[in-house]
Amino acid sequence: MRIGIFGTGSVGSAIGSRLVELGHEVCMGSRTAHNDAATEWAGAAGELATHGTFADAGAFGELLVNATMGAGSLDAIGAAAPADLEGKVLLEISNPLDFSAGFPPTLSIKDTDSLAETIQRAFPGLRVVKSLNTMTADVMVHPAQLSASHDVFMSGNDAEAKIAVADLLTGFGWPADDIVDLGDLSTARGTEMYLPLWLRLMAALGTPAFNIKVVR
Amino acid sequence: MRIGIFGTGSVGSAIGSRLVELGHEVCMGSRTAHNDAATEWAGAAGELATHGTFADAGAFGELLVNATMGAGSLDAIGAAAPADLEGKVLLEISNPLDFSAGFPPTLSIKDTDSLAETIQRAFPGLRVVKSLNTMTADVMVHPAQLSASHDVFMSGNDAEAKIAVADLLTGFGWPADDIVDLGDLSTARGTEMYLPLWLRLMAALGTPAFNIKVVR
Repeated sequence: MRIGIFGTGSVGSAIGSRLVELGHEVCMGSRTAHNDAATEWAGAAGELATHGTFADAGAFGELLVNATMGAGSLDAIGAAAPADLEGKVLLEISNPLDFSAGFPPTLSIKDTDSLAETIQRAFPGLRVVKSLNTMTADVMVHPAQLSASHDVFMSGNDAEAKIAVADLLTGFGWPADDIVDLGDLSTARGTEMYLPLWLRLMAALGTPAFNIKVVR
Repeated sequence: MRIGIFGTGSVGSAIGSRLVELGHEVCMGSRTAHNDAATEWAGAAGELATHGTFADAGAFGELLVNATMGAGSLDAIGAAAPADLEGKVLLEISNPLDFSAGFPPTLSIKDTDSLAETIQRAFPGLRVVKSLNTMTADVMVHPAQLSASHDVFMSGNDAEAKIAVADLLTGFGWPADDIVDLGDLSTARGTEMYLPLWLRLMAALGTPAFNIKVVR
């Protein structure tokens, strides 16, 4: 599949490299056509990897991935041509973290809304599926690295789009039983508001290499 | 030990009954001296169980438990005589859930503050330890009922108070390895903000009988 990724940070790079490894063609988009991080990533990731502007990534992908910082998500996706978003699945990974008052960050959107819903409202042609936002980048794409089974959540309004995202997750190594469908996109309020606990767990454990398992 | 519980709901009853079962003397406090739920609970829970006003519970307990609805916590604890709070450990279990706009509730305090910190500021003589607020009442006191190991979090500023709470948790059946000390009381922002995810998980799973395990 051809996949366009918005964002050149650790999440964009990890997702992009894993997708290329799995045989997908990936275009990593950023604000400018010659972003250093995107150029370096595309150079290292192999023949299936290219880079360009956010608009280039939007045009390239049959499926899109939002891996920008939450504060930049609307601008990044909005840089794509509206026709290039129409009907496409967006795997939405970002979190509305606000670092303006230092660490730990607070949330700029929360409780009665979510970043995922904000993106869906701003770009109604997209089929937004929130997932993977509750863990560090390397765990997203190599889930088997942890010592036991753990879960990834999924929120979205479109059943087919969720199947497409679940297929990607399976490709990354997620067993079907560890993919928890929380329901419609408003349930992303739950996973985005988990971030403050994730941040405290990272501090207490001294590592970002962890995730949670729902135990019944 | 003599323990005073603020609150007569499912959390207060579950904690109270388990403490009595473990040989502690428990006074369940409510707004009035003859609250129906408290009277019924004390009648059923056996000789070590009594009930009274919030002030009675505050005076009775060497250790106190806040099991009220979050919106009522300050009033409940404030009904105790200030001298009866001085230096005591408060196991703080409540969540700042706001049901005014229906279900799922939102949070009345969040992100830059927590209910636990609000209580600590209002009653500086207390040694507040936030714990157990991330699961349903029955799982709090019978953790072994779930199918695998899972975790309980703890936040607080006083190391001795945390040891006292950890001892109670151990009595309830929590293995020491499953008690995760997150750090100071501000980390309660994390566990309180987990509630929106807990609520969506409850809906998706169709049961409140679950908890999470941190997997490294």
